[in-house]
Amino acid sequence: MDIFENKNRTELSELGEFGLIDHLTKNIKIHNDTTLKGVGDDAAVIENNADEVTLITTDMLVEGVHFDLTYMPLKHLGYKAIVVNLSDICAMNGKPKQVFVSMALSNRFSLEAVEELYTGMLLACQQYKVDLAGGDTTSSTSGLVLSITATGTTQKGNQVYRDGAKPNDLVCVTGDLGSAYLGLQILEREKQIYIENPGVQPDLEGFDYILERQLKPEARVDIIDLLAEMGVKPTSMIDVSDGLSSELLHICKQSAVGCTIYEDKLPIDPVAYDTARELNLDPTTCMLNGGEDYELLFTVSIDDFDKIKHNPSITIIGHITLKDEGANLVPANGPVIPLKAQGWNALS
Amino acid sequence: MDIFENKNRTELSELGEFGLIDHLTKNIKIHNDTTLKGVGDDAAVIENNADEVTLITTDMLVEGVHFDLTYMPLKHLGYKAIVVNLSDICAMNGKPKQVFVSMALSNRFSLEAVEELYTGMLLACQQYKVDLAGGDTTSSTSGLVLSITATGTTQKGNQVYRDGAKPNDLVCVTGDLGSAYLGLQILEREKQIYIENPGVQPDLEGFDYILERQLKPEARVDIIDLLAEMGVKPTSMIDVSDGLSSELLHICKQSAVGCTIYEDKLPIDPVAYDTARELNLDPTTCMLNGGEDYELLFTVSIDDFDKIKHNPSITIIGHITLKDEGANLVPANGPVIPLKAQGWNALS
Repeated sequence: MDIFENKNRTELSELGEFGLIDHLTKNIKIHNDTTLKGVGDDAAVIENNADEVTLITTDMLVEGVHFDLTYMPLKHLGYKAIVVNLSDICAMNGKPKQVFVSMALSNRFSLEAVEELYTGMLLACQQYKVDLAGGDTTSSTSGLVLSITATGTTQKGNQVYRDGAKPNDLVCVTGDLGSAYLGLQILEREKQIYIENPGVQPDLEGFDYILERQLKPEARVDIIDLLAEMGVKPTSMIDVSDGLSSELLHICKQSAVGCTIYEDKLPIDPVAYDTARELNLDPTTCMLNGGEDYELLFTVSIDDFDKIKHNPSITIIGHITLKDEGANLVPANGPVIPLKAQGWNALS
Repeated sequence: MDIFENKNRTELSELGEFGLIDHLTKNIKIHNDTTLKGVGDDAAVIENNADEVTLITTDMLVEGVHFDLTYMPLKHLGYKAIVVNLSDICAMNGKPKQVFVSMALSNRFSLEAVEELYTGMLLACQQYKVDLAGGDTTSSTSGLVLSITATGTTQKGNQVYRDGAKPNDLVCVTGDLGSAYLGLQILEREKQIYIENPGVQPDLEGFDYILERQLKPEARVDIIDLLAEMGVKPTSMIDVSDGLSSELLHICKQSAVGCTIYEDKLPIDPVAYDTARELNLDPTTCMLNGGEDYELLFTVSIDDFDKIKHNPSITIIGHITLKDEGANLVPANGPVIPLKAQGWNALS
């Protein structure tokens, strides 16, 4: 009766998260022709009618894997849990509309704690004008597990996938990169100091911006509006949750292209840069592999260069190449470096 | 920094699952007029256009709370996890279309184990012609957590809520009740025997039907087709996941009505009846409070009596009354008994 007795045992860690997903989903058959896009992008795309599609995405957050309640206030966790899903809707070039919230709670949580969590969620809903339209609440035998589903809409044909990048397209990113990761490093540092000396107050002064990027990220709905106003439809798009390298490699793999990005073009905030130096971390590595920025990474046709070139929210960091040229970073000094997905691997 | 230090600490168990949900959701504000129905029913209802609505429901299943892998084969668990969500779409009078699967897995699980789980999910998708269109896979620090979201559609205006029951409406239920619960009792009994004597083979002979009801339930999509063919639109509907009493009380509360149901009308399978007797359980209690039947409980106008009266899939078990008459069971012998929700309470 023990289901874990298995002669052929392959450890999940041998495949990693993306390997497991590829393996499990390769035999999925689509039965409904309204399912325009199933697994493999930031959200599924479902046809409603000739004019509009519904976008659906879902994300699971596990205590001890995705968040640490020692330094993550529950209100912030609630806000962030919603925002990261809205970000996936944005990454499809859509506008978020509804969210569904499932929670597994242990008896360690009081009503007041759950209220804090929920307050953060409702604050995000208010901020983005999305509706908390359903969910499920149950008990957990151990830590907190959150599962959020978000829906959104866009005009049919306006949705942007990961697989549309073409050679010579420009690679663009919004905002700045690496800050959320560096905010996390500061929180981790202060947690260690607190564990060793519980009397010492955490020293977080001067780190406001990078802490906010970690604890209260935002979804770039404004960019979706901006792209519409500028009349630019990206050829591919993804949000930066696992790190720039990892996301760029997704676009390259799915679009069957390569890319070249330039170290000196990568956008970083001055506080993030200084923090990296202070912590003896390479700022470029933080930008490439840090993750949790929730900025949008997209490619546009070179024909759209004039429309985007002076926009302060968008940085052109490189261009798409032929597949066999690979995905590469051109450093400020030294030889070209192949990009590697060293980001988040929740199954390692 | 300890968020669990809280002077005002209210235990979640003081509220229970439904109390907590009521408390948390009472301040939700709807921002989009396409959100026709948010929390409080089997699924949310989202307007797509003048003709159609999308239904969305989500459910979280936690190892050790909702299932026990000692006797629940992973393939069956996968199948059941999908089906219970499709059942919620049916309970809105809709047809299921897509599912989204999130899983938190511990390293206790091998790839082969996850494949078993996924095979069961894909089998349910094949059976019901729904598309597995997305999800999330992550690691868990302890047990397995599944979070499933299902979507469906129906003609606008054809969706059925919990709040439309009117006095004199007939109370109807599909199939039979109590079997899934009694199947679980048999599995629990054999588990205990196995724990005490690992050499003894489990004795499951003759219990096929009730074991299948527990391990491989089905969603009543056929009833949605049947109701459409008969030209019957229920005035209210819910699926029986927590037990007949609990579900009837939801309908009564949301519709602001009472109800009277008759013990001798309640449908039970002969094997389930005999098993209840063998286990010294009251068959009626099993039907009222057992849960996990995934049958549909609905009310119809008395004008539809002729359309449904001879249908073998539907049993009329009572009628709706005025609110102040309460929700009652008329036993075969003895005085009227008020119905109580003694079903599943995942937070107790």
